[in-house]
Amino acid sequence: MSNQAEHPALLIPGPIEFDDAVLSSMGHFSQSHVGPPFVATFGETLTMLRKLLQTSNPASQPFVISGSGTLGWDLVAANLIERGEDALVLHTGYFADSFAECFETYGVKATQLKAPIGDRPQLPEVEKALKEKHYKLISVTHVDTSTGVLSEIKALSELVHRVSPETLVVVDGVCSVGCEEICFDEWGIDAVLTASQKAIGCPPGLSILMCSERAMATFKNRKTPPSSYFASFKNWLPSTYPSHDAKNFISSSSQANTVEVMQNYEAKKASYFATPPTQLINALHTALTQILSRPLSERFAVHREASQRIKSTVTSYGLKQLATKPENQANGMTAIYLPEGVKAADILPNILKKGVIFAGGLHKEIAAKYIRFGHMGVSVTDPKRDDIERALKALKEGLGDAGVKF
Amino acid sequence: MSNQAEHPALLIPGPIEFDDAVLSSMGHFSQSHVGPPFVATFGETLTMLRKLLQTSNPASQPFVISGSGTLGWDLVAANLIERGEDALVLHTGYFADSFAECFETYGVKATQLKAPIGDRPQLPEVEKALKEKHYKLISVTHVDTSTGVLSEIKALSELVHRVSPETLVVVDGVCSVGCEEICFDEWGIDAVLTASQKAIGCPPGLSILMCSERAMATFKNRKTPPSSYFASFKNWLPSTYPSHDAKNFISSSSQANTVEVMQNYEAKKASYFATPPTQLINALHTALTQILSRPLSERFAVHREASQRIKSTVTSYGLKQLATKPENQANGMTAIYLPEGVKAADILPNILKKGVIFAGGLHKEIAAKYIRFGHMGVSVTDPKRDDIERALKALKEGLGDAGVKF
Repeated sequence: MSNQAEHPALLIPGPIEFDDAVLSSMGHFSQSHVGPPFVATFGETLTMLRKLLQTSNPASQPFVISGSGTLGWDLVAANLIERGEDALVLHTGYFADSFAECFETYGVKATQLKAPIGDRPQLPEVEKALKEKHYKLISVTHVDTSTGVLSEIKALSELVHRVSPETLVVVDGVCSVGCEEICFDEWGIDAVLTASQKAIGCPPGLSILMCSERAMATFKNRKTPPSSYFASFKNWLPSTYPSHDAKNFISSSSQANTVEVMQNYEAKKASYFATPPTQLINALHTALTQILSRPLSERFAVHREASQRIKSTVTSYGLKQLATKPENQANGMTAIYLPEGVKAADILPNILKKGVIFAGGLHKEIAAKYIRFGHMGVSVTDPKRDDIERALKALKEGLGDAGVKF
Repeated sequence: MSNQAEHPALLIPGPIEFDDAVLSSMGHFSQSHVGPPFVATFGETLTMLRKLLQTSNPASQPFVISGSGTLGWDLVAANLIERGEDALVLHTGYFADSFAECFETYGVKATQLKAPIGDRPQLPEVEKALKEKHYKLISVTHVDTSTGVLSEIKALSELVHRVSPETLVVVDGVCSVGCEEICFDEWGIDAVLTASQKAIGCPPGLSILMCSERAMATFKNRKTPPSSYFASFKNWLPSTYPSHDAKNFISSSSQANTVEVMQNYEAKKASYFATPPTQLINALHTALTQILSRPLSERFAVHREASQRIKSTVTSYGLKQLATKPENQANGMTAIYLPEGVKAADILPNILKKGVIFAGGLHKEIAAKYIRFGHMGVSVTDPKRDDIERALKALKEGLGDAGVKF
């Protein structure tokens, strides 16, 4: 049983509210990380991630590693691109700056293509950039948690495949996987990175990544070894990756010993590189089982409907969103400008007193002027919960308390 | 409430059996990672780590980051030493090979000083090595989980301070923190890295590190930036670290934004770099509160006594340990050679049927010939549990079933 005492509804864009069964899985009795029961759980979890991301290519490679969403940037920057190569980073908020900084840390030249706050780079601009220089990869934040701006992954990926077919398409799906549709194979995506604590509905502590067959071939054909140890694919895959002999690429010790192997876990074989977070993986297994027990299309529709209801209600309060166009607006969160003269630091504690937690602003230029309302997972999918109604009511009352007239 | 159904006693050298209250904390309702309740929990956790490691110097710096023990090697290799510098790695088993490989990944020259299996490098050999070359740091595995060999941290650190006073003393305490005494300040240690799932008794998923004032100064005075993003201290500390202007060392984005800051958390101020694993940190808070509710000396004595009882019983079964001398033997685990003709893969499933899980061998040269018995945490400290008695009985019966005569 979980520890779900009466508590404020957590409606920030992650961590989100967790289902009782998921929290209960966190308290699973201790298991050996290499024993058959846990190995089966981990293997099934990896297989379920394929379904969530809609990839049926067996050469797609899922990873689940102890870490935060941030570690996903290291996994991409350390493995799928090399020092001196170019990455085009589409910017829709804070998290593109950070991803670009991560690329630079690994010696990758990151070129950011920015849009005004609340908008996204337009396809013709992306096309122009792709024609001006060869980029090894392009990264896009599916939903930027700092702004609530939604990117158009399908059309963007089509464009990249048409204009610069060798460029890998990398999606930061931290705030989208589980609430926004992603057709990994059909859309031609090469990597999606995410975290456990947002729309997947599992507590924080897992970095989740899916790589395409092409991404794995890119890794395999690297000329230089990855310059991270914990974040190196070579330590998380069988020693057949990679097959060539770059100096230090595979040391004798990692060849001779068992290494923690995602492929082994999925094949229900034990192996060891680093101890996986057994309880969190039990919880992820529960969360994914729940998600996949119903059609994904239904899940995305429920999130869309809730989002539209929230956005129209917020608009009826006289408030504007950061994301200015309907097609730019995320379905799992809403970033809301406060009325002139109302500061986030004043209204949030007041809303908390009404039993609801929203997040403050994160985009550095305007952080004090807006709040963020997360609406992912059980708060929208569980008909027994009234989190969203409570939140909309608390927001209205909070604005009223601050002297806002409707 | 935790999910402690009847289950086999997990007596591997980590993950260990967890206390009910710790597991219950894993199921804590969802909390904002930047809200005052969680920030207070995280801050108190960091402060408790100082007590566990017996450091009262306020300039010592604790870190708790989502990851496994392995990430601790990256934290050391990426931050406390630079490309082209030398590290002396004392080898008492598998984990020194891996730490050395991690150093090499970051361009550090790792020189291993090895001992025969079951022994540790002797102080005169270490002295000789330190006099032959200047090492930026020396690393020692306090207890190597593959062999159960215990290193002598106090005497070693004294030697290093005498012979090569500028060399940083780095302790891999993954299998020692919480069951072996560590006097961080008094012994002059510069870094101790560990993980949550061994003698601390918290589920896996946390990388834990304590750095000395001198280690932090070494980081601050780096000539080159850390070549990891997730594992870089600069992202986990206030922007005053470091203060100079090496290219890319602090980018404008990490200076201008709030960054996840251990110092802020400990001062009970919210900040953000990557989402911390809230539930695991709740569980670590519970585990550390339990540990610190009694004198540490008592905890170490209980582990020593249990270990001696186990080792003498195992000896009475006619079995030998990998660690050959009493002073080389860990207090939280025992690595046991099987009798000639008995293989780990045969006896372990048989012992599991009797309700006890031991681990197989991990040292590549002899992996099939031995098993590992972990005796850390509640299995030895909680007088209501009979895990150790059950384990010794299961081992004896398992040997009997395999035809071993006593």
